[in-house]
Amino acid sequence: MNLLLLEDADFITTDRALLRGRRLQHLHEVHRAETGDTLRVGRLDGLMGTGKILQLGSDQAEIQIELNQPPPAKLPLTLLLAMPRPKMLRRVLQTVSSMGVPRLVLLNSYRVEKSFWQTPFLHPEAIREQLILGLEQARDTVLPEVIIEKRFKPFVEDRLPQLAAGSLALVGHPGEYPECPRAVNQAVTLAIGPEGGWIPYEIDLLQGAGMTPVQLGQRILRVETAVTALLARLF
Amino acid sequence: MNLLLLEDADFITTDRALLRGRRLQHLHEVHRAETGDTLRVGRLDGLMGTGKILQLGSDQAEIQIELNQPPPAKLPLTLLLAMPRPKMLRRVLQTVSSMGVPRLVLLNSYRVEKSFWQTPFLHPEAIREQLILGLEQARDTVLPEVIIEKRFKPFVEDRLPQLAAGSLALVGHPGEYPECPRAVNQAVTLAIGPEGGWIPYEIDLLQGAGMTPVQLGQRILRVETAVTALLARLF
Repeated sequence: MNLLLLEDADFITTDRALLRGRRLQHLHEVHRAETGDTLRVGRLDGLMGTGKILQLGSDQAEIQIELNQPPPAKLPLTLLLAMPRPKMLRRVLQTVSSMGVPRLVLLNSYRVEKSFWQTPFLHPEAIREQLILGLEQARDTVLPEVIIEKRFKPFVEDRLPQLAAGSLALVGHPGEYPECPRAVNQAVTLAIGPEGGWIPYEIDLLQGAGMTPVQLGQRILRVETAVTALLARLF
Repeated sequence: MNLLLLEDADFITTDRALLRGRRLQHLHEVHRAETGDTLRVGRLDGLMGTGKILQLGSDQAEIQIELNQPPPAKLPLTLLLAMPRPKMLRRVLQTVSSMGVPRLVLLNSYRVEKSFWQTPFLHPEAIREQLILGLEQARDTVLPEVIIEKRFKPFVEDRLPQLAAGSLALVGHPGEYPECPRAVNQAVTLAIGPEGGWIPYEIDLLQGAGMTPVQLGQRILRVETAVTALLARLF
């Protein structure tokens, strides 16, 4: 937790907040904070700044807040991701959030196991929890938007063309394709497939929606690693 | 497991191997393999190719092997990493192995907790296990070399200058430093600090050994994510 992220409900006045639960425990156990200490804080969907611990107890802490810095810029990106397996989903949500992706679409694909869609990690509160961990890690305050699309074809045919309009639209796919471009200076829509990759029918539909296949070398990376590597290369 | 990785002890003749244990279980449960199926295989520290399942039982499988392809090239890189916490260490070892890092130095640093060095995940067999998972993921056969350096100063003063000689030597560090370069065409020595970063004394010593500090933007990334992002940017 490199940023103490406060929500509206934490504020008792405009510049004072009360902390309990996980974040308080973290202050005690990891930061080993003491009364008078100054911390980096941010307000969810708002500014960042500093917090001074006025009182620190075992059940709550009172913090004086001064917010004066904007959060870091997001990437100009919409990321489409074939729904990963539940354990990987949690890590990917943190990664996406920490790297500054503003919009994530979790998409069905032929090689996504149906059971993946049943995971409790897809509940809005569970998604939010992982996104917040990513924001706390990277020092950001703005939650990414997460869109769930359980039907591939209607999404790709009917919604994707508008979503990707005006952006560099790429789909990661192994094969004889150009390498993923580097350091682009424009908005990007990037689609990353499931373990085992997209099937040819899906690549055809994605190309029909205006997306260009690109490859990332010979090595097959885990989804989380592939996401990070592609974003670091593109931006 | 995108590559079935065989070791010398698995071979019963020059072109036949017997499989038991974890890899056999994986064939059954994940690949749902059947007799006659063809798989991608590789020989540890050797070539890659195909394997045909001749017999498949619950306790062993016999596979006919044909090896004719070289493994993918490694990155021209020596990676120095401040010893991460044990859970992260395991993931980082897989990531490093799957991305093609040929040589990893796990290094002490002021902000590395002493207890990290006690973890059983540092035993040679435990390290090897994670490296092999990374090779199986990425389809590679060559184990990275892992060097453990528990004393920062003697390593940086006495060994690092030779290790980094002739390479672009960089140390990732937040602050007013140049951005990490992109798509370099030369050998690199890259040092990545612990959670919380290097201390100024360490940066001084690393600079003294010829390393140039570079930064990777405002966001603070987990070690595993930072490693992947820096490698994707550099190569």
